[in-house]
Amino acid sequence: MAEREDGKREAILEAARSLVFHYGYRKTTMQDIARRAGVAVGTIYAFFSGKEDIALACAEKSKLAVVERMRRASAGDAPAPEKLRRMVLERNLAYHDIFKDTPHGMEIVTAVLPRKEELIKKFETMEREIVAAVIREGNAAGVFDVSEPEEAAETFLTAFYRFTPPMSIGLTAEEIRAGTARMVEMLLPSLLARPGGSGKP
Amino acid sequence: MAEREDGKREAILEAARSLVFHYGYRKTTMQDIARRAGVAVGTIYAFFSGKEDIALACAEKSKLAVVERMRRASAGDAPAPEKLRRMVLERNLAYHDIFKDTPHGMEIVTAVLPRKEELIKKFETMEREIVAAVIREGNAAGVFDVSEPEEAAETFLTAFYRFTPPMSIGLTAEEIRAGTARMVEMLLPSLLARPGGSGKP
Repeated sequence: MAEREDGKREAILEAARSLVFHYGYRKTTMQDIARRAGVAVGTIYAFFSGKEDIALACAEKSKLAVVERMRRASAGDAPAPEKLRRMVLERNLAYHDIFKDTPHGMEIVTAVLPRKEELIKKFETMEREIVAAVIREGNAAGVFDVSEPEEAAETFLTAFYRFTPPMSIGLTAEEIRAGTARMVEMLLPSLLARPGGSGKP
Repeated sequence: MAEREDGKREAILEAARSLVFHYGYRKTTMQDIARRAGVAVGTIYAFFSGKEDIALACAEKSKLAVVERMRRASAGDAPAPEKLRRMVLERNLAYHDIFKDTPHGMEIVTAVLPRKEELIKKFETMEREIVAAVIREGNAAGVFDVSEPEEAAETFLTAFYRFTPPMSIGLTAEEIRAGTARMVEMLLPSLLARPGGSGKP
């Protein structure tokens, strides 16, 4: 029963996502979403308070997928610097993938703008925690020497603002890949432990 | 004669700036601007093709002021790392100063959006060149060891996207100051020459 409910909710989200990506947020109506999802309009309102609420749930789902790609990239036993390289590249390309097939990128961003703050805070915390964990891992292995991993993780991620939406909408995958790679290399030396012990002033 | 013309152009820009900052872009009319500047509406059209053109000229003037503050911060004979610290802080606070007294920040940004690309390219190049010059100075002094100063300058500046408009609109001066300072310290080690000669791989 709960499973069938979940299935309906997913179908509504998937219908909304594909309609909004194809036709844009403003042109997509609740009727369109219901028809595509194969449910009655009233059923949608059992799950969501309205179109903005659906857009927010779509954004959450996308962001969760990004965080999952970061988690996967940070798993395993590669050296911490390599994990940071992979993870941030995975993250920025994951964001790119979400928007690459739609001409309505900015419209989608604008749709969730009124509730952007809660969304951003929640996922910023999740992303920061994943990066901080890798930094702590690097500290433990003696590769990094970072006194405040959470603060460092926040600054590290902030440096990639240009390569995440909505700023990155319009950049090619290649531009994101190259810009991200150069940024990582500019940030990493500050995290590294000096050979021969803690060389931090 | 040319001087009097310049004076009129400046008066129009100043009138537009103060009206747009106070009442917003949409609510400001060409009539308002003419009245405030003490000229006839026809006179405005001798200088500008319309409101968007005035907004663009205002944006250019603001950006030139930012670049000037960067130039001043990079003058003198402080060590190159210190110059970079000062320069990027001056820059980000200068951008903050422009928007801090207006509730219409995003509206102002949106006004020049259709011609944003040309504006951004022009000033990105100017900013990058100022930073690259300091990096070359640091190279010459043996403080830095950077093989591609222009590329490094671009990556360096990109890291501060979060602290420049429109992304920084809503941040306090203190948040910009703290975030900028932490970012500089995360970037600087990658530029430094290793003691005892070029240690770059």
